[in-house]
Amino acid sequence: MAGAPDPQRRSERARVAILDAALSLCRETGFSALTIEGIAERAGVSKKTIYRWWPSKGTVLLDAVTELAGRTALFPDTGDFERDMNTQVNIVVGLYSPQDTSPVAALVAEGQLDAALAASIREQVIAPSIAGFEERMRSAQRVGELPGSADPAVALDLFYGPLYHRLALRLGLPDEEEIRVRIAHVMAALRATA
Amino acid sequence: MAGAPDPQRRSERARVAILDAALSLCRETGFSALTIEGIAERAGVSKKTIYRWWPSKGTVLLDAVTELAGRTALFPDTGDFERDMNTQVNIVVGLYSPQDTSPVAALVAEGQLDAALAASIREQVIAPSIAGFEERMRSAQRVGELPGSADPAVALDLFYGPLYHRLALRLGLPDEEEIRVRIAHVMAALRATA
Repeated sequence: MAGAPDPQRRSERARVAILDAALSLCRETGFSALTIEGIAERAGVSKKTIYRWWPSKGTVLLDAVTELAGRTALFPDTGDFERDMNTQVNIVVGLYSPQDTSPVAALVAEGQLDAALAASIREQVIAPSIAGFEERMRSAQRVGELPGSADPAVALDLFYGPLYHRLALRLGLPDEEEIRVRIAHVMAALRATA
Repeated sequence: MAGAPDPQRRSERARVAILDAALSLCRETGFSALTIEGIAERAGVSKKTIYRWWPSKGTVLLDAVTELAGRTALFPDTGDFERDMNTQVNIVVGLYSPQDTSPVAALVAEGQLDAALAASIREQVIAPSIAGFEERMRSAQRVGELPGSADPAVALDLFYGPLYHRLALRLGLPDEEEIRVRIAHVMAALRATA
């Protein structure tokens, strides 16, 4: 028998619908054309409902991207660090593709013009992702795939740098083979200079 | 004896004053607070003069940054490639510092949200800079500082990647010592994997 509507479950349904609407609209129209009104219409809720939880479209998108990144960009550990780095960097490049309509690319670009938004992105998305990388790298060092003296901060800049170089200057995101070659270089560097 | 005012010289003076005003105002207020009106006032010209040459504040800033980068970011060639890379990357990091008020950082962030502006940045600023890097790297390969088989496209992504990784995610720009360590890693990678 159907009980009374559960307000908590209804509210979670609305939250998920709003985050999904923000992501799909951003992919269709790009960030600059995204509006709270459009998100509300797509999600089937009122603008008031959105403003009750989020002050701006940037913060809606941040929460949507946080869940997306948390679901998809986890660090694999198959016991082969170089293969796992390839898997993970390809997933991250996928999150930024295509650059013109990727909600993640839009959020990161906005963060470069807005220090407060950037701080939230760092805290919610980037810091957990860096922690995941460092844990995976330490496990590679423990089993001897990388020298114990290799510096995770240097490795992080070199493994992910090529992606952000291409993204910032719009030089075209790296494909799977380009990623493979760059990661092989970084592995050689970490082994040679440690 | 003073001749009649030279319209060509006066117009060049106005152009230089406008570009200088755009750079200094952007450093003081950041890109979002920059206006054509503010630039005109600082340069001592009318808004009409600016709009005669540039359609928007983004295009004024692009020309200002193009001249700035052309003056300061030329590739040195002292015969020591690794030292020259350190010099050049430090100059480029300087152009992006401090990130919040750097006209170059603002322009590159805007380019990530505006494909047409990004294409102009690539053509006016980035392409000549990449050509300078490739020429310097080929000269290092000719004298045997790097193996002839090292790929300039891979080297470019790895030498400049750390800067753009820090910039995009606002992780703090690398200092001189951090740049030195990363460049040493890339040199080792190019020698080990060629």
